[in-house]
Amino acid sequence: MFLPEQTKTRDATAAAKAVTVYVCVTCRGPSGVDSDPRPGVLLAAATAQAADGTGVTVRHVECLANCSRGPSAAVRCKGSWTYVFGGLDVGCGEALIEGANLLAAAADGIMPWRGRPEPLKRGLIARVPPLDLQEVGE
Amino acid sequence: MFLPEQTKTRDATAAAKAVTVYVCVTCRGPSGVDSDPRPGVLLAAATAQAADGTGVTVRHVECLANCSRGPSAAVRCKGSWTYVFGGLDVGCGEALIEGANLLAAAADGIMPWRGRPEPLKRGLIARVPPLDLQEVGE
Repeated sequence: MFLPEQTKTRDATAAAKAVTVYVCVTCRGPSGVDSDPRPGVLLAAATAQAADGTGVTVRHVECLANCSRGPSAAVRCKGSWTYVFGGLDVGCGEALIEGANLLAAAADGIMPWRGRPEPLKRGLIARVPPLDLQEVGE
Repeated sequence: MFLPEQTKTRDATAAAKAVTVYVCVTCRGPSGVDSDPRPGVLLAAATAQAADGTGVTVRHVECLANCSRGPSAAVRCKGSWTYVFGGLDVGCGEALIEGANLLAAAADGIMPWRGRPEPLKRGLIARVPPLDLQEVGE
């Protein structure tokens, strides 16, 4: 069976390198008005559905402290940079899983900008280096 | 020699649990105007000075993707939540080290709000859970 090279690489890397999406389930929408279920809960459900069969773990988290720019999620992979995204909605589940796979496949631990889904470009809130980061010139 | 109980606890914990402050050295000031050295470089130097003798590691990092609300820094400790702060300035070195010690001493991996220095309250941008987080109710 023919498989494009990139797909094979991604699958192999994703299997070797566990990646997790943390979706904030306490996030309200941009208006700040409360609702039941909260937008964060709907986003978490959509993300879990999008993750089905991909090997990406989706977890609920209570507050990523990005309340003014929620709904929020973080993508984390051991040894890689961690990314926090905001301004998400229920339609962003697929984008989060796609971003998680990009991060898992990135040899340099950085989620590539090229090919990154739009919601993860415009919604980038912050990124945090891996514990063992050593910048050039330190 | 008399040592207050809290000081003793913090020292013991900091020794056991390595904590790192990552200061973004590419951050400009709130105006966005470039300067040499950049405010992030000055903050990194002040933080390194404040860390002297505390056991806290201070590292340079190029971009925490919090550019619109810099200068920025992240505080990270293995097994704990990771915190990103913004709106900092050269006077915030001591606050970052104090926050790092609070995090290293926190048994639950959460930087306590009570006792947290003011710049780390008003400047909170986001927090990211440790890899092994398991929320109640999942």
